[in-house]
Amino acid sequence: MAVYTHLGAEDLARLLAEYHVGELVSAKGIAEGVSNSNWLIETTTGRFILTMYERRIDIRQLPFFLGLLDHLAAHGCAVPATIHDRSGAAFREIDGKSVALIEFLPGVSPTRPTPAQARSVGAALARVHVAAQDFAPERENDLAPRHTAAILERWGEQALADIDPRFPSLIGRARELVSNWPTGLPRSIIHSDLFPDNVLMVGSKVSGMIDFYFAAHDMMAYDLAVTHAAWCFDQSGEKYDASVGNALIEGYDSIRPLDRQERDALPLLAQGACLRFVASRAEDWLDTPAGAQVLRKDPMDFVRRWNFYADQGATAFA
Amino acid sequence: MAVYTHLGAEDLARLLAEYHVGELVSAKGIAEGVSNSNWLIETTTGRFILTMYERRIDIRQLPFFLGLLDHLAAHGCAVPATIHDRSGAAFREIDGKSVALIEFLPGVSPTRPTPAQARSVGAALARVHVAAQDFAPERENDLAPRHTAAILERWGEQALADIDPRFPSLIGRARELVSNWPTGLPRSIIHSDLFPDNVLMVGSKVSGMIDFYFAAHDMMAYDLAVTHAAWCFDQSGEKYDASVGNALIEGYDSIRPLDRQERDALPLLAQGACLRFVASRAEDWLDTPAGAQVLRKDPMDFVRRWNFYADQGATAFA
Repeated sequence: MAVYTHLGAEDLARLLAEYHVGELVSAKGIAEGVSNSNWLIETTTGRFILTMYERRIDIRQLPFFLGLLDHLAAHGCAVPATIHDRSGAAFREIDGKSVALIEFLPGVSPTRPTPAQARSVGAALARVHVAAQDFAPERENDLAPRHTAAILERWGEQALADIDPRFPSLIGRARELVSNWPTGLPRSIIHSDLFPDNVLMVGSKVSGMIDFYFAAHDMMAYDLAVTHAAWCFDQSGEKYDASVGNALIEGYDSIRPLDRQERDALPLLAQGACLRFVASRAEDWLDTPAGAQVLRKDPMDFVRRWNFYADQGATAFA
Repeated sequence: MAVYTHLGAEDLARLLAEYHVGELVSAKGIAEGVSNSNWLIETTTGRFILTMYERRIDIRQLPFFLGLLDHLAAHGCAVPATIHDRSGAAFREIDGKSVALIEFLPGVSPTRPTPAQARSVGAALARVHVAAQDFAPERENDLAPRHTAAILERWGEQALADIDPRFPSLIGRARELVSNWPTGLPRSIIHSDLFPDNVLMVGSKVSGMIDFYFAAHDMMAYDLAVTHAAWCFDQSGEKYDASVGNALIEGYDSIRPLDRQERDALPLLAQGACLRFVASRAEDWLDTPAGAQVLRKDPMDFVRRWNFYADQGATAFA
């Protein structure tokens, strides 16, 4: 969470002059995004978020991500629309880096979601899935279980044992998940990372879903499972909140009813969701020296969720 | 520049309920302040900056700083007023840390100030000096030359030579400055740190002066000299911009005419201002390992300014 690049007021004013957004009134670098720098910009006509893509995002994929925001916003989803410049471009370059101007949306991210909030998020996610079905551009999900299982395989049992003695056994469990992974469930574009951090709410209403930079084509029920793993537990993954979990599923189902196959697959899909966060956190953990001034997220938080879904998933999604 | 503490939406909503400011609508951690965490808060009634005091600021001095903002705002100065809570308190505690809610002001900080902007800043600074004259609380300036010269003395010639071979000679020059330091010039409360970063402008108009955490009683002309050193050079201190320098002094003089003694003292006062930033940057430089991921500001930037004022100060302030 940082602003990696300094953009002076004069640079910003010059950039904004390329858009139909009025004159610069205020600009604050905001502490959001791990691979972008972001500014909250106020002009004489409104408020906007300016994002500068610093790393990790493949710039060739920006038209996909920004086009998706436009498509979803035009279909009434609670996502920020991309502001296009005077020539119609969705992003520009400044000092060799790509920048995009997007709509500012009000709202705050819940830390301890209520059932009412989870219900709204479920419904909002379903609306995204429905609206994205006629979005033409394609993007493969490079964080599907076969890819994330491979991350664990690459580290190997010995390295993983340094995280926790129970960790090496996950390699076999991941392999099993991949071989049982469902195919043929209904697909659309999925958000893939809809943690509470990426949702803005005013009260119990979703005012915005942000950070679509993992969006890709995949099974819609898998996205619901990711969201379930992200919303329905305490941080450590020790305590499942059934009222939040049930509300999330009900909210989703109220907009896009799940079919029998999808519902039956949820326990497995949720384990695949956990595998993904276990793998990325294990990688960060092993890549980051213990003494570093960076907060390492405990990979065990999602191992606990994985165990929950393996043991009690059938009941949780009944 | 960071947000050091996580404050969840629920924590923020609970905090704001202690004020007459309406309901929380949006909150963004902003990348401002080196010893505070700051959030830009929007409620149903307006926008505010929430500051959490993390370190370096002596909490016992908060009533001075926040009271000063109130006093200056009430006297029409372009500074943010402190928002008091329902019980009238200017600051509260959350998780053992003090927090204050202050008015949000529009504007952006110039990176390359124009003469018109410098003129406005000079006038705005003079207004602060005039308005602060009947602010009763006292605070000594602990960054006056006798204190900052002592910092160089403490490091000693050998350590300072590691920065630059010309550095050790500054100890003698600092000693000389202290012994010639003027006394008896008109005093008020001075901002002491009015760099462009700490000024918000809409066009050429000052919309806000912020970060009064070095404010103290001292000679008003010294504050003007600090501001001159901060506004009228390129970053490295190599190039003085006379049109910006003259406009700053004229702007100040238009609101609070400098007397002869003050004007004559400016070259010396400006050297004292440089000494202060040389000393604090030298300290940061020597305290920070060369490989650290922290940007060290080059102490030579203000040695160059010091040299300028020693050689050409009489002309610059003529």
